[in-house]
Amino acid sequence: MNKNFEHSELRAIQYGCGKMGKLILRYLYEKGVTIVGAIDSNPSLIGQDIADLIGLEQKLGITISGNPEEVFAKQPADICIVAIGSLMTEMYPLLTIPLKYGVNTITTCEEAFFPWTTSPEFSKRLDSLAKDNYCTLTASGYQDVFWGNLITVLAGASHKIIAIEGQASYNIEDYGIALAKIHGVGLPSAEFAAKISQANILPTYMWNSNEWLAARLGLTVKNINQKITPVIAEQPTASRLLNRTIAAGECLGMTATIDLETNEGPIIQAKSTGKIYGPADQDTNNWTIKGQPDINVTITQPATVELTCATIVNRIPEIMVANPGFLTTHNWPSPSYRGRILPSYLPTK
Amino acid sequence: MNKNFEHSELRAIQYGCGKMGKLILRYLYEKGVTIVGAIDSNPSLIGQDIADLIGLEQKLGITISGNPEEVFAKQPADICIVAIGSLMTEMYPLLTIPLKYGVNTITTCEEAFFPWTTSPEFSKRLDSLAKDNYCTLTASGYQDVFWGNLITVLAGASHKIIAIEGQASYNIEDYGIALAKIHGVGLPSAEFAAKISQANILPTYMWNSNEWLAARLGLTVKNINQKITPVIAEQPTASRLLNRTIAAGECLGMTATIDLETNEGPIIQAKSTGKIYGPADQDTNNWTIKGQPDINVTITQPATVELTCATIVNRIPEIMVANPGFLTTHNWPSPSYRGRILPSYLPTK
Repeated sequence: MNKNFEHSELRAIQYGCGKMGKLILRYLYEKGVTIVGAIDSNPSLIGQDIADLIGLEQKLGITISGNPEEVFAKQPADICIVAIGSLMTEMYPLLTIPLKYGVNTITTCEEAFFPWTTSPEFSKRLDSLAKDNYCTLTASGYQDVFWGNLITVLAGASHKIIAIEGQASYNIEDYGIALAKIHGVGLPSAEFAAKISQANILPTYMWNSNEWLAARLGLTVKNINQKITPVIAEQPTASRLLNRTIAAGECLGMTATIDLETNEGPIIQAKSTGKIYGPADQDTNNWTIKGQPDINVTITQPATVELTCATIVNRIPEIMVANPGFLTTHNWPSPSYRGRILPSYLPTK
Repeated sequence: MNKNFEHSELRAIQYGCGKMGKLILRYLYEKGVTIVGAIDSNPSLIGQDIADLIGLEQKLGITISGNPEEVFAKQPADICIVAIGSLMTEMYPLLTIPLKYGVNTITTCEEAFFPWTTSPEFSKRLDSLAKDNYCTLTASGYQDVFWGNLITVLAGASHKIIAIEGQASYNIEDYGIALAKIHGVGLPSAEFAAKISQANILPTYMWNSNEWLAARLGLTVKNINQKITPVIAEQPTASRLLNRTIAAGECLGMTATIDLETNEGPIIQAKSTGKIYGPADQDTNNWTIKGQPDINVTITQPATVELTCATIVNRIPEIMVANPGFLTTHNWPSPSYRGRILPSYLPTK
């Protein structure tokens, strides 16, 4: 029923109202999307009107619920935005909920950006569930543009690609405790070392993103390796997130280095560092396409959080017209700037 | 007949074998395109085998002709690449030749990148001619990616665009005498000033490119202004192209500043400087999307000539499947990296 646009607005449910979700809610609101539901498990958020969350004077009459099943059962919606966690193991059960109710879903979950190798079973099940309920699941965020389409657009001006090299960093302070844990923040360096082999099993953002990039370029993966190394504090570094100072010798975070070989020749080597920033640190995003000719791109001080949320919202119209199933964006056009997001021009599924 | 791909190769005619054409020929050859003809008006090139031009040991049996009509009349081809001049007034008669023979054509002509406002009459006539002969004309080059798709891809991660600001420079030494003339290279500064009002009538690369950018973003032009200012040599600067040293006080080239207002709100302001470089100068390409959030991109030392030629060649498969007529790339996908360019997967028109 919610596919027929018998209503005049695009109706969204925000699932996850933390740092990201809050900003997504504001962007949705400002682009003309009607927010019909909001969900979070944080007791301090439950019951709040979303107008308070996004800084509007007038209440919107939509309060944050702690019960996702109830929200979806009661409220038809066209799109659900899930901004909670980074890994498929954690996100799988949560993603099944909107899909079960036939609601198109886009998530910030970084592994879901291209999870076919790292979580094939969960991916297959989500794909079936989406198809059974005639809706679409996809994932997007910062990496969709800055580790993905930005590179493929520049590749379109290359005669011959030998290697693609990337380097990016993000501040764990900007995200949450869940992310800090995966990155080993605050561990004594000896303890991180002991856990490296275990951490190596988990895909890092760059892993999934580099597989996406290869697929987008029509390249097939021959071999992919991930190496995780700790970033050790050289001097005491205050963390708001941990509410303590990380001592010299403790972990600030980690660097993941991906080496991807393709059957076609070009290699992809990318390094992402997630850590608690010191006062002089900034987000970075630098890529080089080595070949004929070399192409070097730098994004200066990317506003990673805002760019993630804006990209997610700009992707919505494409999900609305996509085929049912779990689809990754590697064979979609790159996200478009959209002044408004209105359903009038969207066909029904 | 040349649309039916009854042959197993993609057959190209290179029209213009100067600095750009020579590199395009090599890229075509290395990507598996069969070169069936080459044309140039320069007497020192006529009669040369293109193998010599691109540095192959074995002759290819294709010599440069000074007679375009003869080449097209004799030799069926699937695509013609025209790399000669920058302005429609100059290029119009030349572009009619391949079109008359029903050969798909792509040109480096910068005005042709989006000529609908600056040369509406010529554009309309070329469109009719292409349609009458069931073939496609388009233009591409460096600006297709670096002043165009690069910006629109980043815009896809923006919540709100207030302004797009660009700054680019190129070395006139890399191009030719024709370009040097348009840029006032070597003129005494007083003489350039006298000619500014006249030069203002001619569209600069950035003008057409900014109109393309607005169209690509779905914005409509309310007002566009171009200001041309000379770049005066502060010290003597040697020019290989002019075969003399430009004295202090003479013009090294010019800066064109475009101010484009849209009916939808966002403005585009871009500045391109074309001049004879001193030893410390490098090509630059910097863009800022001002809005929520700001996005800053820098391409470090872009290899403008190589990137132009590679983009042109990578665009070929899209022309082969495009509708007949004069089409600009603003509503095509961005150019794709292509390891090979083979006709096997291209449908006929």
